Amino acid sequence: MAAESGEKWILTVTAQTPTNIAVIKYWGKRDEDLILPINDSISVTLDPDHLCTTTSVAVSPAFSHDRMWLNGKEVSLSGGRFQNCLRELRSRASDFEDEKKGIKITKKDWEKLNVHIVSYNNFPTAAGLASSAAGLACLVFSLAKLMNVKEDHSKLSAIARQGSGSACRSLYGGFVKWIMGKEENGSDSIAVQLADEKHWDDLVIIIAVVSSRQKETSSTSGMRDTVETSALIKHRAQEVVPKRIVEMEEAIQKRDFPSFARLACSDSNQFHAVCLDTLPPIFYMNDTSHKIISCVEKWNRHEGSPQVAYTFDAGPNAVLISHNRKAATLLLQRLLYYFPPQSDTDLDSYVIGDKTILKDAGIHELKDIEALAPPPETKENTSTQRHKGDVSYFICTRPGRGPIVLTDESRSLINPETGFPK
Amino acid sequence: MAAESGEKWILTVTAQTPTNIAVIKYWGKRDEDLILPINDSISVTLDPDHLCTTTSVAVSPAFSHDRMWLNGKEVSLSGGRFQNCLRELRSRASDFEDEKKGIKITKKDWEKLNVHIVSYNNFPTAAGLASSAAGLACLVFSLAKLMNVKEDHSKLSAIARQGSGSACRSLYGGFVKWIMGKEENGSDSIAVQLADEKHWDDLVIIIAVVSSRQKETSSTSGMRDTVETSALIKHRAQEVVPKRIVEMEEAIQKRDFPSFARLACSDSNQFHAVCLDTLPPIFYMNDTSHKIISCVEKWNRHEGSPQVAYTFDAGPNAVLISHNRKAATLLLQRLLYYFPPQSDTDLDSYVIGDKTILKDAGIHELKDIEALAPPPETKENTSTQRHKGDVSYFICTRPGRGPIVLTDESRSLINPETGFPK
Repeated sequence: MAAESGEKWILTVTAQTPTNIAVIKYWGKRDEDLILPINDSISVTLDPDHLCTTTSVAVSPAFSHDRMWLNGKEVSLSGGRFQNCLRELRSRASDFEDEKKGIKITKKDWEKLNVHIVSYNNFPTAAGLASSAAGLACLVFSLAKLMNVKEDHSKLSAIARQGSGSACRSLYGGFVKWIMGKEENGSDSIAVQLADEKHWDDLVIIIAVVSSRQKETSSTSGMRDTVETSALIKHRAQEVVPKRIVEMEEAIQKRDFPSFARLACSDSNQFHAVCLDTLPPIFYMNDTSHKIISCVEKWNRHEGSPQVAYTFDAGPNAVLISHNRKAATLLLQRLLYYFPPQSDTDLDSYVIGDKTILKDAGIHELKDIEALAPPPETKENTSTQRHKGDVSYFICTRPGRGPIVLTDESRSLINPETGFPK
Repeated sequence: MAAESGEKWILTVTAQTPTNIAVIKYWGKRDEDLILPINDSISVTLDPDHLCTTTSVAVSPAFSHDRMWLNGKEVSLSGGRFQNCLRELRSRASDFEDEKKGIKITKKDWEKLNVHIVSYNNFPTAAGLASSAAGLACLVFSLAKLMNVKEDHSKLSAIARQGSGSACRSLYGGFVKWIMGKEENGSDSIAVQLADEKHWDDLVIIIAVVSSRQKETSSTSGMRDTVETSALIKHRAQEVVPKRIVEMEEAIQKRDFPSFARLACSDSNQFHAVCLDTLPPIFYMNDTSHKIISCVEKWNRHEGSPQVAYTFDAGPNAVLISHNRKAATLLLQRLLYYFPPQSDTDLDSYVIGDKTILKDAGIHELKDIEALAPPPETKENTSTQRHKGDVSYFICTRPGRGPIVLTDESRSLINPETGFPK
């Protein structure tokens, strides 16, 4: 180490990484340690302005061991998945030199130097919104920058994959495919970008964060149980998904919303079907999720062509992808009609993210929600019921960009003097 | 017709037919008109003392046309399915003579004579407890007796099948297999008895009738949609079910409860999985159904061997099959702990059927339900929540006998003088 022992220099990097939502689902591993999936998957990256992880990483000879803080609390890095990522990154680290600061780190030094990692999600972690995907992707991306790793995003995606499978898809913006790969060592199980976020920028995304008291099955143990016990998962992975991947790539390429919506909805439903086909069965959707699907299906049928696609991950939250801004406005009106906020909720915290959609929908205060008329496609009494409190809040967003380095030092989460969280 | 025109004789028959619950499910037709399924199914016949249809049929030269009354209200017989059953039965009718009453009907007469059918379920029709299965089976069985049809139960099952698919399984007691058959005309798509109700009389069945405000998809249109849109149903019907049928027959033969439970639960879940894999998806189970499954799964796991199997048909009601009376008693305590009645419900109408199980469970009044301790397998706070009002009522029953003719004239639903409902 060129920096002399006792020297207190600290080198930091801060990055921001988006979450992603799969429209062709990943469910089931063929290798638990390397996190190799049993089928390809395709995702849409969500705008980091509304949903992202920011991570600052620091290295210093003064650090006694690797440490990490998530959302203000120190968390253990001892898990095999963190360790795999750190080992992979260190083995790819390159020489680094900052003459001004008098810092010189050789490739070999990285094996001995310890890092501090400080991570923060701009959305509630408990909401089940793929926080681990964004988090692991951001950890890998920021450490790769810090350690001067020269590999491209695809190679980094294979490292992030070992931290959390779907994290590999968060290394790109827009539309991303995780190729399952064939190699036993997982070297070809990587993410690639199908199209960037500008390719199909009509799309608008509304997320309904659904209230739930049920304790959910973790996706790690859930997908293991499915692979071991479902009589349908193999058929899904080998026969159904490969065709859907081809069709979905084509739908994205052609911006063919009806095909996109049909595939996304069918694949979300099939993912939950194989969960139900697991023993013991896994339920991620609840009655509110079902009501949201019914609302969307009824409206799509009424319109004669799909206005909105829905997809649900390992939880009850609905991710609703509208084919344009007009459809998103009409969707938000419907959602607020069926799922008004509790009386003590304020509108500003009930619809977050891109609030201009709320204004387009003519909703300026809570009274405007109460005054909403039943959607024209509802004819029967049962479907005009309103379900106050079933949804915690809505997030309005859109497809977004991939990871970026934040050069503005004020956005660092690490105190440059101490190397600890600010 | 030997009976002279203007003569007012009336000939009646009354029969009672059980409902049945499939433990390997029927879902999907290969022929909509003949009601031919895409896979075999296996059911347990439920004790008619607690769940059955009673049907009286009458024939008289005085009747101007075929008429039917169900639960006190006249219903139309014009549907194709009723007409198919009536036509099939008339074509198999035989000569009948009652010298005492001076009635003589030749095979040919039956084509011109009209019938009155009066049917009554001893359980709420709206509860979604296979009322059409028992109803159609009873209609066919009673008319076959009236018309002196000499075919055996298997042949009758093929006629009942054309009224309502699962009705064919209600022509036998105990354990019944509906063989899908291969013939285009459906002649080999019949029900056969695997074992009678005495073969495995340890089993005790508790049905939880679950409150629901959702309008359910009819099974006829639901299974049509599944066959047309599910990417998994063909694999289920062709690859999964045939193996399960063999295993389930063996489990029943050997009274092997662990295998029986595993197969019944897996197949119920898979049926609901293919419903979810339908576009638009079909949800029959709701949050309460999910809670009941969790309760049973948790208890089974805690005991180390299955105490109870669950199965759900096209609705949210749970049919819970306990491996013996002891297990049923412990199950009922658990169900009443998690799903106590509303304060204004009386115990006598909250647990119906075989009430001796309630007594064995030490429940004599509502206070005893309130005083129930959380089951030992519940450790976390979330799983000790009680859900008042989620279940409408429970029915305690057991496997039961097949159809019988009721010779006691007082049990006839038809006035022998007028030929109309009593």
